[in-house]
Amino acid sequence: MSQTKPSWETLGELIATRNSLALLRFVNTLSTSEIARAISRLDSEEQLSLFSLLNPEDAADVIESISEAQAADLVEELPSAQAAAILEELPSDHLVDVLGEMDGSSSRAILARMDVEGAAEARKLLSYKPDSAGGLMVSEFLVFQTDDTIQSVLDDLQANRSRYADFHVQYFYVVDREDRLAGVLRMHDLLFPRRQTLLTEVMIPSPLSVAEDTSLTELREFFEEHRLFGVPVVDARHHMVGVVLPGAVEEALNKRKTRTFLRLSGIIGGEEFRTMPLASRSGRRLSWLSMNIVLNIIAASVIALYQDTLATAITLAVFLPMVSDMSGCSGNQAVAVSMRELSLGLVKPGELLWVLLKEAWLGIINGLVLGILLGFVAFAWKGNIWLSVVVGGALAANTLVSVMLGGMLPLILRRLKLDPALVSSPLLTTVTDMCGFFFVLSFAAAAMSNLGGL
Amino acid sequence: MSQTKPSWETLGELIATRNSLALLRFVNTLSTSEIARAISRLDSEEQLSLFSLLNPEDAADVIESISEAQAADLVEELPSAQAAAILEELPSDHLVDVLGEMDGSSSRAILARMDVEGAAEARKLLSYKPDSAGGLMVSEFLVFQTDDTIQSVLDDLQANRSRYADFHVQYFYVVDREDRLAGVLRMHDLLFPRRQTLLTEVMIPSPLSVAEDTSLTELREFFEEHRLFGVPVVDARHHMVGVVLPGAVEEALNKRKTRTFLRLSGIIGGEEFRTMPLASRSGRRLSWLSMNIVLNIIAASVIALYQDTLATAITLAVFLPMVSDMSGCSGNQAVAVSMRELSLGLVKPGELLWVLLKEAWLGIINGLVLGILLGFVAFAWKGNIWLSVVVGGALAANTLVSVMLGGMLPLILRRLKLDPALVSSPLLTTVTDMCGFFFVLSFAAAAMSNLGGL
Repeated sequence: MSQTKPSWETLGELIATRNSLALLRFVNTLSTSEIARAISRLDSEEQLSLFSLLNPEDAADVIESISEAQAADLVEELPSAQAAAILEELPSDHLVDVLGEMDGSSSRAILARMDVEGAAEARKLLSYKPDSAGGLMVSEFLVFQTDDTIQSVLDDLQANRSRYADFHVQYFYVVDREDRLAGVLRMHDLLFPRRQTLLTEVMIPSPLSVAEDTSLTELREFFEEHRLFGVPVVDARHHMVGVVLPGAVEEALNKRKTRTFLRLSGIIGGEEFRTMPLASRSGRRLSWLSMNIVLNIIAASVIALYQDTLATAITLAVFLPMVSDMSGCSGNQAVAVSMRELSLGLVKPGELLWVLLKEAWLGIINGLVLGILLGFVAFAWKGNIWLSVVVGGALAANTLVSVMLGGMLPLILRRLKLDPALVSSPLLTTVTDMCGFFFVLSFAAAAMSNLGGL
Repeated sequence: MSQTKPSWETLGELIATRNSLALLRFVNTLSTSEIARAISRLDSEEQLSLFSLLNPEDAADVIESISEAQAADLVEELPSAQAAAILEELPSDHLVDVLGEMDGSSSRAILARMDVEGAAEARKLLSYKPDSAGGLMVSEFLVFQTDDTIQSVLDDLQANRSRYADFHVQYFYVVDREDRLAGVLRMHDLLFPRRQTLLTEVMIPSPLSVAEDTSLTELREFFEEHRLFGVPVVDARHHMVGVVLPGAVEEALNKRKTRTFLRLSGIIGGEEFRTMPLASRSGRRLSWLSMNIVLNIIAASVIALYQDTLATAITLAVFLPMVSDMSGCSGNQAVAVSMRELSLGLVKPGELLWVLLKEAWLGIINGLVLGILLGFVAFAWKGNIWLSVVVGGALAANTLVSVMLGGMLPLILRRLKLDPALVSSPLLTTVTDMCGFFFVLSFAAAAMSNLGGL
């Protein structure tokens, strides 16, 4: 596999020959992830040529193959008329996802070049929060009137067969004369009644629906509770505006998890791909790290305060990072459990005391086990029981502090409307470092007469 | 909200009165996440009483409200006959998910008590890998014969209307006389042709299908490439065995992300909930931490080797954890980007050199920026330019090492078939700690004549 030519080299060569047909034929042989990878490896000039060689429809297929962040980066580079022509070919939900990843001025410029109707719909969808029912719904759904008969529905289906082919037609929706949602029909409800039957006679009246601003968490709960294949979205006047499919909810939850994971690891300001310009990759990573350097200085200043103690028993310097690292790991476990329980609704942000107690017991046990382990290691090395007591005791105490803090932090941050994924870990590390250094050095100061010269 | 009685107290009281009807009525007022939370807060005796008071069907509804890990823990406590009666009420895919979370002996005991047909199907589904097409498919689908007519399909639909009500009927599948998948029909394909038309005349012949062992990643690619509402799963003889829905793929990707996140944070051996017994929570967390203690000892031993250097310039002890922590953060950013790019297929495990180069450039820039920052801090504190050069230079060098290693580790581990989420972070931390200590102390040893007495 590694000896064959990488797909982006072939792609680059085909772009250089400007042979649209051969290019399209080659792109069609690639899987979606191969397309995404190959395009990301082209330089920006080649990317521009590629999109000018493909017709808008084929270019849209390519856009659909790559992640939204990547697509947005790419489309922003194109002249806005060309970008508009391509984006018009995307389904409404995907179009909005790509536009949502761009900065406001780029997306406005593209929308200005799109056909009026499509742009108006996109603007409306963009006005919803991305993780609300409005932002997740598809606007392609089948709607009929309460005074329609089964025959008129069948006639409409026949007349618009090709247009409806890509619609998700698990359900048909029925609206009244004021356009308010009145009922829902399953496709097989149409198959058996007499053709002159009114829809009102066979539909399920007053169906479940959600408001446009229903949150992702509420939607997840909705589909857990009701095993439906879609739910209609209605506005304040009960007019139907779209349908949320359970797959869209799962996809949004997936994206949210990805963001959480990246933020926890210090990748902020959107996703990073290594094909992005070096300056923006470096800058975004630094913006996170420079906050960390301040926190690190605060934590390390504790050591500076105890320099005399440390000078008397220099061996302690070996244990300082061990105690703080180990407790940091224990604290991160507690953070992860709290974030998981919060996301499942198993714990509420107000239940600090419950979490505190649960973590305190665990912290005492794990603190003792780890402290005794580290105490043994210290004794095996230096043969001084006081050293063991100091470092083992410090690790035990700091583990307790760290798991209690780690368990509570996500709840506190959620209550303060801060993002636990962004703030938990640096805050926890700072505090556990400070406390770890403090415990080791203050315990050592107290036992100094027994530690001298170590 | 916090002043009203928590739902689990009400639930506990209703269980104590043994009033099944009132209990069921109360449970029905709760949302799924409230049910999950309330049940998790009951003690195990109350949980057992709850399930013996509900009839199997209602108990199954409760089981469907809670996460699979929680459900499995709970069902394992029940007598196996009762567990079997409850689990029989679950849809096949959910049943298998719950059984899959249990240990083998418990699930076998329950399957032995289930009705023969259901147990056989569950055993078959359990034999698939959970993240393969076989493990993700639903076995409820509508299948007809090539010599069926539209009329016979309509008759069948009418006859089995209530049974089919919960089926996902975006497509009908057509099989030949040897039971091999021959075609697919959309519901509206049935609406217009003459009733005596054979299905073979209206179906889409030779439809796309996937094998039972198709992986989750392949399925994700499939649905990215083909915007379908489901794909049939066929066995080696091209017999149709189930349908994979795109929502199931998204859900499985979601679960995989959760596992990745938890493992990265050191929660291994399955999910932890704070309502689990203290001993198992503590034990599982310790199993991870005890590996970490060994790695920490290895890293800290570098400091022990340089004790004399440290004793001459005790100030360095303040900078040791700063340099290692900061570089650890930089390395974790690179790990996160690699894991994301791997999961999207934007980088292949073999492309070590490409990642190395991309990270090296970034490491040089960020290393210089952070090193200069730390150098300034050191100078502001002690006014010694040599100290600045030592600690700033160490941070720069270690940042470079750390981002290169962090970028490559997930690729290397993936190639070695190890779990990057489990191993990347502890390995990275150990190496960056060791290197950080080594850079600070060896640079200091070289500049010792200028650092004495700091």
